Amino acid sequence: MVHNETSTGVTSNIAAVRRAIDAAKHPALLLVDTISGLASADYRHDEWGVDVSISGSQKGLMLPPGISFNALSVKAIEASKTAKLPKSFWAWDEIIEMNKTGYWPSTPNTNLLYGLNEACDMLLEHGLDVVLARHLRWAEGVRAAVRAWGLQIQCADPAVYSPILTGVMMPEGVDADAVRKIIYERFDCSLGTGLGKVKGRMFRIGHLGDSNDLTLMAALSGCEMGLKLAGVRLAGSGVLAAMDHFASHPVSLPRSPAMDAAAPTPTRVVLT
Amino acid sequence: MVHNETSTGVTSNIAAVRRAIDAAKHPALLLVDTISGLASADYRHDEWGVDVSISGSQKGLMLPPGISFNALSVKAIEASKTAKLPKSFWAWDEIIEMNKTGYWPSTPNTNLLYGLNEACDMLLEHGLDVVLARHLRWAEGVRAAVRAWGLQIQCADPAVYSPILTGVMMPEGVDADAVRKIIYERFDCSLGTGLGKVKGRMFRIGHLGDSNDLTLMAALSGCEMGLKLAGVRLAGSGVLAAMDHFASHPVSLPRSPAMDAAAPTPTRVVLT
Amino acid sequence: MVHNETSTGVTSNIAAVRRAIDAAKHPALLLVDTISGLASADYRHDEWGVDVSISGSQKGLMLPPGISFNALSVKAIEASKTAKLPKSFWAWDEIIEMNKTGYWPSTPNTNLLYGLNEACDMLLEHGLDVVLARHLRWAEGVRAAVRAWGLQIQCADPAVYSPILTGVMMPEGVDADAVRKIIYERFDCSLGTGLGKVKGRMFRIGHLGDSNDLTLMAALSGCEMGLKLAGVRLAGSGVLAAMDHFASHPVSLPRSPAMDAAAPTPTRVVLT
Amino acid sequence: MVHNETSTGVTSNIAAVRRAIDAAKHPALLLVDTISGLASADYRHDEWGVDVSISGSQKGLMLPPGISFNALSVKAIEASKTAKLPKSFWAWDEIIEMNKTGYWPSTPNTNLLYGLNEACDMLLEHGLDVVLARHLRWAEGVRAAVRAWGLQIQCADPAVYSPILTGVMMPEGVDADAVRKIIYERFDCSLGTGLGKVKGRMFRIGHLGDSNDLTLMAALSGCEMGLKLAGVRLAGSGVLAAMDHFASHPVSLPRSPAMDAAAPTPTRVVLT
Repeated sequence: MVHNETSTGVTSNIAAVRRAIDAAKHPALLLVDTISGLASADYRHDEWGVDVSISGSQKGLMLPPGISFNALSVKAIEASKTAKLPKSFWAWDEIIEMNKTGYWPSTPNTNLLYGLNEACDMLLEHGLDVVLARHLRWAEGVRAAVRAWGLQIQCADPAVYSPILTGVMMPEGVDADAVRKIIYERFDCSLGTGLGKVKGRMFRIGHLGDSNDLTLMAALSGCEMGLKLAGVRLAGSGVLAAMDHFASHPVSLPRSPAMDAAAPTPTRVVLT
Repeated sequence: MVHNETSTGVTSNIAAVRRAIDAAKHPALLLVDTISGLASADYRHDEWGVDVSISGSQKGLMLPPGISFNALSVKAIEASKTAKLPKSFWAWDEIIEMNKTGYWPSTPNTNLLYGLNEACDMLLEHGLDVVLARHLRWAEGVRAAVRAWGLQIQCADPAVYSPILTGVMMPEGVDADAVRKIIYERFDCSLGTGLGKVKGRMFRIGHLGDSNDLTLMAALSGCEMGLKLAGVRLAGSGVLAAMDHFASHPVSLPRSPAMDAAAPTPTRVVLT
Repeated sequence: MVHNETSTGVTSNIAAVRRAIDAAKHPALLLVDTISGLASADYRHDEWGVDVSISGSQKGLMLPPGISFNALSVKAIEASKTAKLPKSFWAWDEIIEMNKTGYWPSTPNTNLLYGLNEACDMLLEHGLDVVLARHLRWAEGVRAAVRAWGLQIQCADPAVYSPILTGVMMPEGVDADAVRKIIYERFDCSLGTGLGKVKGRMFRIGHLGDSNDLTLMAALSGCEMGLKLAGVRLAGSGVLAAMDHFASHPVSLPRSPAMDAAAPTPTRVVLT
Repeated sequence: MVHNETSTGVTSNIAAVRRAIDAAKHPALLLVDTISGLASADYRHDEWGVDVSISGSQKGLMLPPGISFNALSVKAIEASKTAKLPKSFWAWDEIIEMNKTGYWPSTPNTNLLYGLNEACDMLLEHGLDVVLARHLRWAEGVRAAVRAWGLQIQCADPAVYSPILTGVMMPEGVDADAVRKIIYERFDCSLGTGLGKVKGRMFRIGHLGDSNDLTLMAALSGCEMGLKLAGVRLAGSGVLAAMDHFASHPVSLPRSPAMDAAAPTPTRVVLT
């Protein structure tokens, strides 16, 4: 199953699925794709009883794309030893063996491994609690904007809203990809397209990784201008709603002393 | 004189000063500081009869700080040969001599020279006309926001508005630096402080160099939220006014084919 | 088959194998691994009738590891459509389809694609003829050193010597990995280990990609010092032999004007 | 005075000059240029009673050129307050005042300041004792090569040999710059030229900063080949002499545990 569905902005209750498998005494392994979820939404490989977690570098880990990795349960490793299906990505034995001495069976993407080491340091320095709370707050701000526009959030159930991205449905008759094209060409901002059966029906706003309130305000401004230019009638200003949200919801967890020591000057200087 | 006054957001009419010097038949050299002006506001060393132009890497040339340079008229070079005042920055003879063979009398900042070469290529690829028009348009958008807030633009004369930055005056009784502190701490955005006798009376919003409409919307959003949090009563939303401006004023000059070929993907991907 | 065998320093005659397949009228596809060969040794996918060429970023293309790619013949593409074996790396249809519009079915390693673009520009600016001649000359210099040491080159047949690396056999009783350890710990130089059945019997010296005569002299100096420190009796100085070779064999093909214009200063300044 | 004379490869006894000034009860300030000396040769601003030390980023601090800085004694600061000569580089009062709150009176070269912070961490992680011993050992290896060639070291007094660079005198009738040109064009290695009255009579080999035994072997190989190609008759092989030196003189101080932890893989991989 997928932890955070990147194409829709919906999260899944992994622990509940584990409980259902266990209740049914079913021997299936629980495989979870947390490519876009890891380090932006709460995720607990061991505690939730996941057998195989799959993630990658290019989302919450704030790196360029290029590496993917697995976390494995003992049960998954055991199952792998006797599995008969042809496998390549899931063939872990050689990797596990060589990792013991710090090596890899083939040539790994070394520069991304250095980057991953740094990204993990950054996340742990902030504290995972702080990082996850930050994404929840951003997501609420973006959803406040979508509601103010009078548009529909693709994820119908608030219990599984994604802290990573929000899918924005277009009114009947509006081609979402035409809106995306205007926003890209006029405002240099590239939004995610609708995939599969919602192609042309929605676009996606990301609020993950190395962002802050103002990068989201930039994105929302681009959306609001682009929607209007595309002729979409908006109920109100999502930009004002998001500002109301961000201004009235200070980050509750304090910046850690380590962060302040490490970053005496802001990393995003857009003004002089 | 100063081409673009960074501390106030006011430009000067260099050509008019040259004409006044000439009309008075005064032998003075015309020295112009265009550190923040070059490559963001129209500037013509030869055509305007400037004797010494001074600029640097860190503004419109889009580089880190670290190098400064002069353009010289024949008259300035001649005057330098017989000048009696002690000089160091203005002692060009050794530099001119060694530059003939591509060298420098002391160890130059080589990495910024490579960067400068690239920055000039970028500016010329866009076309200076395009670059200068872009800054004028951004400045109008930011001033639209300031007016909508009901605040005063520091530069009183529209004829000399700066395309590079806008000084925003605070109402009586508001400490501009307290506002800046809120914007920095809450929204990770560092605004320029008031200098000299306007210290604490204003802050500055930059709209120069490697920006786009949405980086300015980010900055204006940070200002609007910070002003409100600081208790400043705003007449209206500057963010809405700026969006109206940017959406209703498309960039009139087309992107050059070279740009499109060079940049098939956007350089500022803030959404996924 | 393998174009350049990285573990031994042996090249293969691809064109001859193609002719043998054709003479036997055998329908097999000719798959060639040119991961370490491409852009350092002569290789001709079309002319030699290769069906599938496999290469990667991290050897002659002078990039960090992280991407691998295929070149395909029409015959290979056709065969793929009806192939019944499970396949993942060899499943090209979706890639071919999306490449038409400049996209990729999954998230590609974008930063390495930018690097690959630059690496290709560099190679074509030098000229492939120049690049290939350069590697042949380096290989001869390194082999001159090995012969002067009185050691054996792993590749027994001069007709298939690799221009990319040279395998150096140790005398009986010498542990090649102990020699490698000394060279690494004392001289900060990491040599390739013997793989498979020559483990501990040989080490490998690379002479590929972004090297020059002096980086090879550095490597050979490290080897010569390390061999002596390990107690290996050398017949003579390989370093002197390599210097004789490099000094008496100037690069026959001139540097292109484009290179000189692009690189007025040396890229490897080790002295001041 | 100059701590390490970059144009000749001679160091000065700073402490002795201080004692001479004190013995003469002379009020002069002791100003020392340690641009090329700092962090490669022993230097003690406080202990040696220096009033003003001047250094820069581009030598032992292993950074690109672009910043220079001073260390000041209380006596120098006091003298500065009443000095009547025009001054710019030596006008410290505004800098000292603003540094108290972490600022700078003009725009500093921020990216080099970040680099300087990292360079200082690297030096202190190795330990200054280790760094200085390393340079002394490199210098002896390079001088062993010059002696083996039968050429003269420019610095006539072994007591003041520089650990940073070695000046190599040419025999009568040999144009040092012609030798340098061959080494640059044939071997991509740029050596320092003779300055002032030794122009054309010598060249300089640097052994400072971020080097290792093999980068020096690369440089010495380039010199030996270039000298021979220029027709200089050499008494013997400097390259062999330097290898003898480096192989028989292991670095006496162990690598620190911190270094090994920080750098599990070599930073200079020249072989594969």
